[in-house]
Parts: sequence; structure tokens; C-alpha cells
Amino acid sequence: MPTPQQAQVWVIDHYLEDGLDGSELRLERRPLPELSEGDVLIKTRLLSLDASNLLWLSPKKDYLEQLQIGDPMRGQIIGRIEASRHPDWAEGDHVFSLQTWADYVVCSGDALNNDAISFKLSPHPEIPLDAYVGTLGVTGWSAYVGLHHIGKIGSGKRVLISGAAGATGIMAAQIAKAAGAKVYGLAGGEKKCQLLMDKLKLDGAIDYKATTDLKGEIERVIPDGVEIFFDNVGGEILDAVLPTMSIGGCIVASGSVSQYGKGEQYGIKNLPLVTTRRLRMEGFLILDYLDQVPTILQEMETWFLEGKLINQNQLIHGLEKAQSALSILATGGNTGKLAVYIDGDS
Amino acid sequence: MPTPQQAQVWVIDHYLEDGLDGSELRLERRPLPELSEGDVLIKTRLLSLDASNLLWLSPKKDYLEQLQIGDPMRGQIIGRIEASRHPDWAEGDHVFSLQTWADYVVCSGDALNNDAISFKLSPHPEIPLDAYVGTLGVTGWSAYVGLHHIGKIGSGKRVLISGAAGATGIMAAQIAKAAGAKVYGLAGGEKKCQLLMDKLKLDGAIDYKATTDLKGEIERVIPDGVEIFFDNVGGEILDAVLPTMSIGGCIVASGSVSQYGKGEQYGIKNLPLVTTRRLRMEGFLILDYLDQVPTILQEMETWFLEGKLINQNQLIHGLEKAQSALSILATGGNTGKLAVYIDGDS
Repeated sequence: MPTPQQAQVWVIDHYLEDGLDGSELRLERRPLPELSEGDVLIKTRLLSLDASNLLWLSPKKDYLEQLQIGDPMRGQIIGRIEASRHPDWAEGDHVFSLQTWADYVVCSGDALNNDAISFKLSPHPEIPLDAYVGTLGVTGWSAYVGLHHIGKIGSGKRVLISGAAGATGIMAAQIAKAAGAKVYGLAGGEKKCQLLMDKLKLDGAIDYKATTDLKGEIERVIPDGVEIFFDNVGGEILDAVLPTMSIGGCIVASGSVSQYGKGEQYGIKNLPLVTTRRLRMEGFLILDYLDQVPTILQEMETWFLEGKLINQNQLIHGLEKAQSALSILATGGNTGKLAVYIDGDS
Repeated sequence: MPTPQQAQVWVIDHYLEDGLDGSELRLERRPLPELSEGDVLIKTRLLSLDASNLLWLSPKKDYLEQLQIGDPMRGQIIGRIEASRHPDWAEGDHVFSLQTWADYVVCSGDALNNDAISFKLSPHPEIPLDAYVGTLGVTGWSAYVGLHHIGKIGSGKRVLISGAAGATGIMAAQIAKAAGAKVYGLAGGEKKCQLLMDKLKLDGAIDYKATTDLKGEIERVIPDGVEIFFDNVGGEILDAVLPTMSIGGCIVASGSVSQYGKGEQYGIKNLPLVTTRRLRMEGFLILDYLDQVPTILQEMETWFLEGKLINQNQLIHGLEKAQSALSILATGGNTGKLAVYIDGDS
């Protein structure tokens, strides 16, 4: 296939300030270079929507290099190689990579080989492609690493998950159940809580929006205390959970999605309990565990085919919907993993 | 010696509210029971003043059972056995124990044997007794456990200590130096900083009271980032240190002395950095490590005799000064470990 001469690219118009205003990104046509020796042409099939997208749209420097105004938006994608001038990559290969949000991307095959975040994907024929950005994607690996490597989960442990109906939370819930833990979820709204109870068969779900005393509600549902708190949310919810932790408990600091892009950050008042309750609070980024992904992925594909992991993606169709998908993510309107699916098999 | 019929006892008059008002305790004469079979009479020689004393005077339940209004104040003491009706304890023995603040205490020898916090002390003849509540006391063991067991200190590590001129901080500073680390201290006031530089030979000291940009000041002094933060203080200082932590750094949550007894707790805003910087924040209480104290103490007595640990106690003479000693502790007016020394060898 000849290289298209232009790509549609989502470009950063301005950073978000106190929440998204829906115009942070604009879709532009930009010229696509000819393939030089060693290059590949990727046709984007899926954009994975993650909390890190919001982080990159924030004016604060956090991890990886900051994006500038006018830069293309960055994100995890799955693409198919449409043309290749690199010996390691062939037309029809699939690639999982950190790329720009665009319909076509030209990049160096060596860059794909050398980048820890990029690898060749061999999707299982019985598994839909979008599962590899959902259940079998970064959020699944993150949940696995957070629960097993950081939380040292074991059978019978009392595990509480915040944002339990969100992308990483829904994976943490399933992986924790698979480990034989007693699993409880925090989520906003009755519908999400029903999902947790009916579909994921959790041991308890608390609608944090329906209570004015979240701490008391957690103590009622988990009277023996939380042993592992898998926290995706931070802020006020973390502050309410801290006094419900068991002595020696672990807080897996997976993220603070409630605080990204917020001007004034919420101040955590109950942190002295880390000392008196002998808690361990530990952060991690999946970036540091990418060498373990092949092993994790193999194990998780088996679970998937055995029906132990549910593919609970919310697919938004069409590249032009990426900004509105981001707004859904920012307001927590999604149940499960959000992804933008770009149709058009060639 | 016949049992005295009365003891002077510090009794809780009221809890502290927003800082000490200096009348939380009152000194009362209370009857002292006759020694029954199995009892010992302890003459108190030293009261150790610790952050936990302030914690116990707070209305919040934290660890160990709460003290009630009218109860005797609790604290670590060193006493001498004056009379014994227990086969394991003899007149002249020394005991390190969690007891009430009083000149004489009658208690069961079995209780001393069974209580993890109490043990027989064999003070080295060349080491002054008060060293065993200071350099060789709980604060020393805490600093040791915090740096070695929690912080996994090693040679060359960049270690920052808050409250570095305080009881535990001054020990952490010395033990970190002994481990070959690069050691920096935060303290309030020029005098304390001079002590850290001149006497303890730290690699840097920052007077947090003399700067309006603590974060910037730490970044200037430790441009490569803090690898281990030994935090005794919590609150605003912890919030300023968080953005100066290296990726993968460890926060040893030794205490939050700035927050004890305060009505409104300071809210930590920079906690999302725990995730993005992959930090580990871990609390500990020396209570959980008491079985290791004999080993730690043996090692530390050797260091003491070799001059590697300085006995930097601030001794207040006389039981009747205990409340004012507590006020010094609460306002951070001490340099080094505070203890009340009760004279009168018999």
C-alpha cells in the first residue's frame, strides 16, 4: 500500500486547568513523510484511554517528558503495520506502542525495537483485539503488578479497591478475586456498584456518592479492617480509607485520578496513621515492570479464555471522538476500560 | 528498705487541645500499696520524654489503650529495684519499663517479665545511666530500625532527616553517618543547625524556619534528590519534601510530631507523587521490634564507647519539672533527647 500523504492528528491546543473544557485537543491534518529505509507505517486500530492521558494534558511535570502546546497528543495504541522497510516488521504485524493519537504514524522500526513500551503483539485468534488494551492491556498488567508485586496479595486477604468500576479498578477486582481474596469495591453510583456485585461477584460494593460518612460505611462493610487498599483515586477517598486500614496494611498507590488536572489539590489529613498503624504505602508505574509483561500476558490470556476475566471495554468508534472520550474518562462516566476503536480493515 | 506509704504521681487533669496549656497534668500524692508476694518496688530514676507522651495526652485513640482523665501519666522510665518479693528481681537491679510518671511504683515482677516493653538493664559502668533513655534508648533503637529495617540504608545514600536535632532525629543522623550515608538535616533555628553541622558533622543542614521556600532550599542543597527521608515531623514539612524525593525513594514514617495534639490536621497535597515517583512510605513502631533490642543495644554500646554516638541529652532535674519538660518537648525547644532525672541515690 502506498503511504498516505496526510494523517489526521490530535494536537494539544491548551493544557487542562480545573477539569477538561472539551477543547484541549484539536484534530489537524498533518503531512505524513515517505517511508525511509528502516521505517514502518502504522495504521492505528485502537487508542487506549488512560489516566496518564489526563496527566500529560496537565501543565505539571510528572513522568516522561512534558508535552508542549502544539504537540500531538500521546497515548498507548494498538496498530497494524501497513508497510515496512524494516526487516523485523512485516505488513500485517500488530504492534502495541506508545505513539501519537493519529490515524497513521510513520516511525522507525528500530525505535519500536528499542522502546521498552513497544512490542509486537500476537493477538490470540479467539480473543478480540480490543481486549489487548482492556483486560489484557496496560490496566490489567498494572492491576497484576499492584496486587502481586506491591500488595503481596494472598488468599483470604481483605482487599478494598477505589475506582473499582474504572479501567484499572475493574481489573484489580477480577485479579484479586482470582487470588482468592475478599474483595470490596468503591465506586460512584448505583449502576457501577451493581456491576461490581452482579457481574464481578465482589464481596461488597460501596457507592461513595450515596454516603456522607464513607469511613463509617467502610467500617460497617469491612469491620475487621482493610488489609490491602488498591487506590486509583487518591484525595478525599484515600483520606476516608486511611482510618479503616488494619495494622500492617498496605496501600497500593496505583493513581490519584481524582487529583489530576485539578488546580487546588486535596490535602490528606490522616497520614499520621501510616506510622501508628504501621502502614506501607507504595507507588509503582507499569513502566518499571514491562520486562515482565510477556509472562503476565501469557497467564492472563489463559484466564481470559477460561472466562475468569471479563472483557468490559467501552468502545467509542471513530478517531474524531477521541476528545469526547477523554471527557468521559475525566468525569468518571465510563464503566470499565475506555478505548477509541478505529474501523476500516484493509 | 521499707516501702514508702505514698508516691508522688503525675495525673492527667485534662487532654491537650490545640497545643499544651501547661496544666494537663497535676502532681498528686497517692497511697502506695505494701509489697505483696511477687511484687517489686521501683524507685524511678529517669523519665524519658517522647512524642508518644503527647500522643497519650491527646483525645484521639491511636495505639495502646487510651489514658483517661484522672489516670496517672504513662511513659518510659528507668528505675532501680529498691525492694523485691520476686525471685527474678533483686534490690539494685535496673529496669527499663513503660510505667507511670511517679517517684515510686509498686508492680508485679511477673508483669515486668511478661511485658515486651520492660526488661532488666545492665548499664555499662563506663556509660552514664541517662544514655539508656537517650542515645542507647528507645529513640536510638527507633532510628536504627527506621534506617536499617525500613529505609534499607546503605553507604552513599542521600538521607534527609526532619526534626534532625530532636530526640529520634539526632540519633538517626548519627546512625546514618555511621552507615556511610550522605546525611542532611532539617531543624528549626540556627542553633540546632549549627549543632548538626559542627557536632554531628552532617553534610548539610537546613533551617526550615529561615526559609519561605523549603522545597527550593532542599533542591538547592540536595540537587540529586532525597533517597531516604526519615520523617519525624509530618505535616507541612513532609509536603515540602515529597517533590524533592528521587524516583524509587523511601519515606521512613517515624512520626508526625507537628500534628500530634493539633485540632485541625495539616492536609498533605503532594501525595500523588508517591505513584509517579514510585515512592515507598512506610510506618513502624519500635514496639514491633523489641525482640531485636538486645542485639541492637549491644552494637550501639560498642559505638558509644568508641565515640561514634554522642550523648546529647537535655536533662531536667526533679520529678516536679515533668510538666514543664513536656512543654519544652511540645514546642520543640529541646536540642536532643529530653529526660527528667530524679536525684537521690539511696
